[in-house]
Amino acid sequence: MGSHVIDLVMLRNNFGTEEMRKVWDDKNRLQQHLKIEAALAQAEGELGIIPIEAAEKIRAVVTVEKYTVEEIAAEAAKIKHSFMATINAIQNQAGEAGEFVHYGATTQDIVDTGAMLQLKESYEIILRDIQAITEKLAELAKKYQYTTMVGRTHGMQALPTTFGYKLAVWLDEFGRHQERLQEIKERVFVGNINGAIGSYASFGPKGTEIERRTLDILGLGTPVISWQSARDRFSEYASVIALISGTLGKIGNEFYNLMRTEINELEEGFSKGKIGSSTMPHKRNPAAFEGLASLTPAVLKSVALIHESMHVEHERDAMSWRLEWIALPEINSYIAAQLANFKVILNDLRVNEQGMKDNLERQQGLLLSEKVMFEVGKKLGKQTAHHVVYECSMKAFEEQKSFLDVLLEQPEITATYSKEEISEWLVAENYIGLAAEKVDEVINHLKEKRLLEQ
Amino acid sequence: MGSHVIDLVMLRNNFGTEEMRKVWDDKNRLQQHLKIEAALAQAEGELGIIPIEAAEKIRAVVTVEKYTVEEIAAEAAKIKHSFMATINAIQNQAGEAGEFVHYGATTQDIVDTGAMLQLKESYEIILRDIQAITEKLAELAKKYQYTTMVGRTHGMQALPTTFGYKLAVWLDEFGRHQERLQEIKERVFVGNINGAIGSYASFGPKGTEIERRTLDILGLGTPVISWQSARDRFSEYASVIALISGTLGKIGNEFYNLMRTEINELEEGFSKGKIGSSTMPHKRNPAAFEGLASLTPAVLKSVALIHESMHVEHERDAMSWRLEWIALPEINSYIAAQLANFKVILNDLRVNEQGMKDNLERQQGLLLSEKVMFEVGKKLGKQTAHHVVYECSMKAFEEQKSFLDVLLEQPEITATYSKEEISEWLVAENYIGLAAEKVDEVINHLKEKRLLEQ
Amino acid sequence: MGSHVIDLVMLRNNFGTEEMRKVWDDKNRLQQHLKIEAALAQAEGELGIIPIEAAEKIRAVVTVEKYTVEEIAAEAAKIKHSFMATINAIQNQAGEAGEFVHYGATTQDIVDTGAMLQLKESYEIILRDIQAITEKLAELAKKYQYTTMVGRTHGMQALPTTFGYKLAVWLDEFGRHQERLQEIKERVFVGNINGAIGSYASFGPKGTEIERRTLDILGLGTPVISWQSARDRFSEYASVIALISGTLGKIGNEFYNLMRTEINELEEGFSKGKIGSSTMPHKRNPAAFEGLASLTPAVLKSVALIHESMHVEHERDAMSWRLEWIALPEINSYIAAQLANFKVILNDLRVNEQGMKDNLERQQGLLLSEKVMFEVGKKLGKQTAHHVVYECSMKAFEEQKSFLDVLLEQPEITATYSKEEISEWLVAENYIGLAAEKVDEVINHLKEKRLLEQ
Amino acid sequence: MGSHVIDLVMLRNNFGTEEMRKVWDDKNRLQQHLKIEAALAQAEGELGIIPIEAAEKIRAVVTVEKYTVEEIAAEAAKIKHSFMATINAIQNQAGEAGEFVHYGATTQDIVDTGAMLQLKESYEIILRDIQAITEKLAELAKKYQYTTMVGRTHGMQALPTTFGYKLAVWLDEFGRHQERLQEIKERVFVGNINGAIGSYASFGPKGTEIERRTLDILGLGTPVISWQSARDRFSEYASVIALISGTLGKIGNEFYNLMRTEINELEEGFSKGKIGSSTMPHKRNPAAFEGLASLTPAVLKSVALIHESMHVEHERDAMSWRLEWIALPEINSYIAAQLANFKVILNDLRVNEQGMKDNLERQQGLLLSEKVMFEVGKKLGKQTAHHVVYECSMKAFEEQKSFLDVLLEQPEITATYSKEEISEWLVAENYIGLAAEKVDEVINHLKEKRLLEQ
Repeated sequence: MGSHVIDLVMLRNNFGTEEMRKVWDDKNRLQQHLKIEAALAQAEGELGIIPIEAAEKIRAVVTVEKYTVEEIAAEAAKIKHSFMATINAIQNQAGEAGEFVHYGATTQDIVDTGAMLQLKESYEIILRDIQAITEKLAELAKKYQYTTMVGRTHGMQALPTTFGYKLAVWLDEFGRHQERLQEIKERVFVGNINGAIGSYASFGPKGTEIERRTLDILGLGTPVISWQSARDRFSEYASVIALISGTLGKIGNEFYNLMRTEINELEEGFSKGKIGSSTMPHKRNPAAFEGLASLTPAVLKSVALIHESMHVEHERDAMSWRLEWIALPEINSYIAAQLANFKVILNDLRVNEQGMKDNLERQQGLLLSEKVMFEVGKKLGKQTAHHVVYECSMKAFEEQKSFLDVLLEQPEITATYSKEEISEWLVAENYIGLAAEKVDEVINHLKEKRLLEQ
Repeated sequence: MGSHVIDLVMLRNNFGTEEMRKVWDDKNRLQQHLKIEAALAQAEGELGIIPIEAAEKIRAVVTVEKYTVEEIAAEAAKIKHSFMATINAIQNQAGEAGEFVHYGATTQDIVDTGAMLQLKESYEIILRDIQAITEKLAELAKKYQYTTMVGRTHGMQALPTTFGYKLAVWLDEFGRHQERLQEIKERVFVGNINGAIGSYASFGPKGTEIERRTLDILGLGTPVISWQSARDRFSEYASVIALISGTLGKIGNEFYNLMRTEINELEEGFSKGKIGSSTMPHKRNPAAFEGLASLTPAVLKSVALIHESMHVEHERDAMSWRLEWIALPEINSYIAAQLANFKVILNDLRVNEQGMKDNLERQQGLLLSEKVMFEVGKKLGKQTAHHVVYECSMKAFEEQKSFLDVLLEQPEITATYSKEEISEWLVAENYIGLAAEKVDEVINHLKEKRLLEQ
Repeated sequence: MGSHVIDLVMLRNNFGTEEMRKVWDDKNRLQQHLKIEAALAQAEGELGIIPIEAAEKIRAVVTVEKYTVEEIAAEAAKIKHSFMATINAIQNQAGEAGEFVHYGATTQDIVDTGAMLQLKESYEIILRDIQAITEKLAELAKKYQYTTMVGRTHGMQALPTTFGYKLAVWLDEFGRHQERLQEIKERVFVGNINGAIGSYASFGPKGTEIERRTLDILGLGTPVISWQSARDRFSEYASVIALISGTLGKIGNEFYNLMRTEINELEEGFSKGKIGSSTMPHKRNPAAFEGLASLTPAVLKSVALIHESMHVEHERDAMSWRLEWIALPEINSYIAAQLANFKVILNDLRVNEQGMKDNLERQQGLLLSEKVMFEVGKKLGKQTAHHVVYECSMKAFEEQKSFLDVLLEQPEITATYSKEEISEWLVAENYIGLAAEKVDEVINHLKEKRLLEQ
Repeated sequence: MGSHVIDLVMLRNNFGTEEMRKVWDDKNRLQQHLKIEAALAQAEGELGIIPIEAAEKIRAVVTVEKYTVEEIAAEAAKIKHSFMATINAIQNQAGEAGEFVHYGATTQDIVDTGAMLQLKESYEIILRDIQAITEKLAELAKKYQYTTMVGRTHGMQALPTTFGYKLAVWLDEFGRHQERLQEIKERVFVGNINGAIGSYASFGPKGTEIERRTLDILGLGTPVISWQSARDRFSEYASVIALISGTLGKIGNEFYNLMRTEINELEEGFSKGKIGSSTMPHKRNPAAFEGLASLTPAVLKSVALIHESMHVEHERDAMSWRLEWIALPEINSYIAAQLANFKVILNDLRVNEQGMKDNLERQQGLLLSEKVMFEVGKKLGKQTAHHVVYECSMKAFEEQKSFLDVLLEQPEITATYSKEEISEWLVAENYIGLAAEKVDEVINHLKEKRLLEQ
């Protein structure tokens, strides 16, 4: 029975996914360790470092089902070494070939390479979801390309924009995230099989070849030199996840705000029977949006922890890498939950176009003050126009009048412009600038970069 | 010319106050160091450790105006020691008495005790502002005790509350902050004059007495044992500031949200000529509210840094304490800016009671679904009532009907209750519970604890 | 099967304790929720809010064994509400009385009060361990009161001290931690039973009394006003844990450094069969020391996360409190592991007094340069003596000569002092200052404050 | 007079460099703003948006010397807008052309693009220093390619390695850092000139072209869509600095440890007259090493802050970007100080080869236990050999005997191997594995990638 929220039956699906939990559980962790010992034995067998029969025997016994995690854990506690007990267990299974298990390797080789294999599995899940999200965002940006809505700065209504534009900004951001994930792939997913302090001394002169062959079998890259004391790869991976999570948290918060009772432009998917409150029957809460937003601070904390784990002493120490053990499952669980949640959110999103329209009218024309300023500025000069329009705006706001009415009281303006002209300036749909065009530009850009299929 | 935002002429007043900058600038830092050397000399003179004439001579030369920071800094760079140059400068001023400057002390004694003196000055500023804020919050809570407004959970309208209640929650929180500040005072503001590794060896058998007498002169407490390698006091102070800043950031964000165009229940003080945007003349931005909210993450990061500085190696090291040098001015500057800003915000706050009323009506009665449920539940049982009222609520929401109309279509309800009764349930002002009473309770509680004067 | 390191069978005992895991697992979480519903029903029954028989029936069905976490979780997923499913389950067990379950309460009441109950259980464990550690540190400080060893600053040998003194600094620190834990107790452990937005509206005029009676039953304090939107108590608790963990991490690192092959003054407990390395049979690693040190960064990250959770919007939101759900079990698990580990470390500590002696000699007398300076300074003045002794020290260091020999080459010194006198200055045991006295002072101080029994 | 440590005359050179301070001071900030307004006017003039003469006039008045920061700041405080005062100042200088200053732009356009220009200047400094460091590390790795020294894991002596190998691990890491800096360059250094909410509405249909032309003039890239609400570029830049700083902090700590009195394998550059302590004349402290190590936690905190600033609301808000204003100068100052310091450290490094040799002998042969195990294992099997050699090692350690003597007491060993053979195993220089070869491999690898010149 778990006690961390990632493992609590009642709460875990808000903080991870079953798929990702399986990557980081005891069973898969042990499975990777076994797989690495088998690959190492195979490589050493092929290179004549250990008898080829021993290698084959070892390979035959490394299915995780043959082992009991609890038993290994119990022995590990006794001998106070986290991995020696696993080696002993394999040795027991392997009979005489057991002498050749873990030959020349150090615990760190196996544990680090295992973590890298788990990380790569996580990466594949994340990349898959990000690609799916990119496609969906493109679809929605196109769908709402011309859906005019209020743009806000400082939480206040600023100018008209379109919902498609808002989505396109995020789409562009996910394009960059895809690029980042691609760029780090080769550099990050590199194993480590080079002995006690990375010198290959125990492997003899063929050390580098043993390492390369082992890692080829495992599908990982080979380092130029050991990274036992150079953990930047984990931090680099985590950094990219930080950026992705940053985007997701921002979007979760944005949707949360757009769903506010008083804004009411969006709603998250609602299924009959969904309860918002145990005491207020009317509540329809942005539970999924909040869930999306809430995990970013958690990801960022775990990323910060990974960064600290770069602080290795000498050829390695056990203080730094424990931070990786804590943070890697966290980062991957939380981001997996965010991505899974976001996919559902996008699929079920309810866009309230009427609500968007209502909000465009809420300020009685002030939303278009910039437009008025630029039109008036053609005559008065822009800076001067700023002052004139500022005075009108303040008056309209303070006296809660329509902006048009106030403008029409202004002789400097009515001297030159008719009511019809001014009314035309105040139509939100006329002043969305290049918002709609930008949707296409982003989509085309991503297609050119092959980051978008559709 | 500064390059950190705390010191940029263009921006610094958003990130600090002049008063607080003066606590942490070069001049005051040097002044405290001089003061400590004088106090030490005096104590040692009185105890016969150094000639009393030397002590008097030293006291006579420690006014900061006699020294040039730039010159001391230049020599420090040459001899690669951050404090030896200051000692040399005093010695130069003190003539023969200069041999007795810094007698028995180590650099750390002076630098740590100096930091503590600067910290205590900061503390006084902060405590003063927090007391003023507590008074103001009490005044406003009382003023708006019965001002009904929407209460929100998950960003969605939930139930009626009062603005005074909202303020009273914060008032209660500031009461706890005051308590915390009082509780830590004696424990935190303790100096350190005990020699190279805290053993007083260089001071001889009167070491403890020299320390106590020096610190008495300086108005600081005396430690039971040296804290050169035990820096928890700085972290404790910072922790309390973290909590205070957490409250302030929350309030800044709350006000920012209540000022949103679509919510429009509050506005920050507006003075004629205040500009919101260089391009949108109508903008009236929550600049002060955003400023208040924005500094909390910065405080929290500096607090986290201070916590790391507890990690001292051996009798002391220069890695940990540099983090204090970074973080202490930051924490105090940011919180000073927040407090100063918040005082102005509270004084100038524009409460839009009409806006609050409008929002109470926005959901056409759904705001009172809980009330309906409890009334109906008297007949149907509360859990059953939840289901019935839930169905009505969902219908009202989906069909955008008034809640009253939907309820009146429900035979289970109309069988028992009249339209008048139901209408009465839907009056927000009738369902504020103990919100107003709680305002008085909080105020009385704080008065009893002598945390509130008025 | 867990996937967070706190729950991994292979690793969990390095990151938590069984005792603490049981506080935060699904079962105990549910148990607390049930207990609160029972207490609420009892209070409401006694006050005539609900029928007393309903209250009794509810109390009869709230043993956790009657419920299946997996089933509740499955329903929660369906209705998308984390707690409604629990209410339904109780209702199912309670028959007709089920209508009165959770009467007037909101989910947050139960979940927050439940978290507080779990936190209080954690607190008791931590306080117990800290008291035990305080006693043990006092015992060891006394045992090694006069055990002279090298004091180090900047990682370099500085002056002699005693091992007891080093322990006494920490003892003093633990005294402060005890004080802090005591001070926060009453302020922090306060429940919250006040309805949807804290206004008690659903409870009627007896709201405050219902709350107080419920919380009295549960052994928690009653708030003056709801803390649904004021989460500083969790942050305050976490802050104290941050300080405690800061001390523990520092000590872990200190012991780790003192165990270094080249320093060799301490060793952690060693039991026959303990393995240091799978490939280097000679390795005896500071595994426990590293374990102690490694968890502090993790605690600090979780504390930072809790601090962010103070940022509540409006009357509450679900973004902030999820950070508590993440961080509270983490903070308590990690600190529990540190404390449990530290208790064992102190019990089994191997102090190598010969190693300490050897290190006192390692610099051939330079360790006493301060003593020489003060003696010589009696004649030459202290500042001048600094220059003279500095030159001698640099020479001894560069030419790897004994300090005594270099001093005896210095006419300014030999003019006044004999070889015997100078040799006497260079005896480390003679220059420990008040190190030993301070051990007694700290112990007496803690006894007076009743923070130490022995 | 500054009050942040980056600006304190006494301390600033430990926390930044003069060169970097000049990038982030008021003057350069204003200069960049002026430059952008000029570039915008020029682009708009060329495209016929504003009169070409106005553009020329504006360009003529944008030298920073014409403006007084203090005056602009004073007006900004009055109108409560951080940038409008700058526009007014330019307008005043530009006469009639002043109406066309800032035409169509929003404050954010200028401030964000200005920050990007400052960031790019910082980038050039950092990249230059990293390239220099890469070259120097390669030179040193080659110089010490065969200098045998102790390798340590868990702080304990583990196996022999070479100093060149240790340097090559870092060299490889700096190679990756160079790659990262190159990869982000095009993606990060992108300006933003697209109006109030990024829709170009105020610029009219030529919006994108105005933006591109302006940014071309400034030497920045053009975004596909506005990044006003997508701040991942700053976070990406900061992430790479986090990794670089992580490496530097690790190295600083490593050197600090290798300089310990008891290890004594390295010393930082020492110049005559350098003072280590005001009271202990013999002290030669690792001041530069500590300085190098100390700034990494500070960088990491600022990076974490930048990550939080990704959390933008709507089209933009002023809460998030203030975190950038805080963190960007911090990150760049601290890393600049680390890099400048590290360059000096590498140039002046004193390598104590005799000290390294002494430490190889310190364990009386146990350092080679792995070698013995593998040799013995050829007969006994590796796992069995582990047990045998483990027993011998524990005995040698506990009884403080030479490892050779203990091995020679072991019949299983002496039965097969002679004293000469065993003695040969115990020679550290014989068991450095591929440490020296790896130096060449790393250098060749970096040359191939054109990350290293020499």
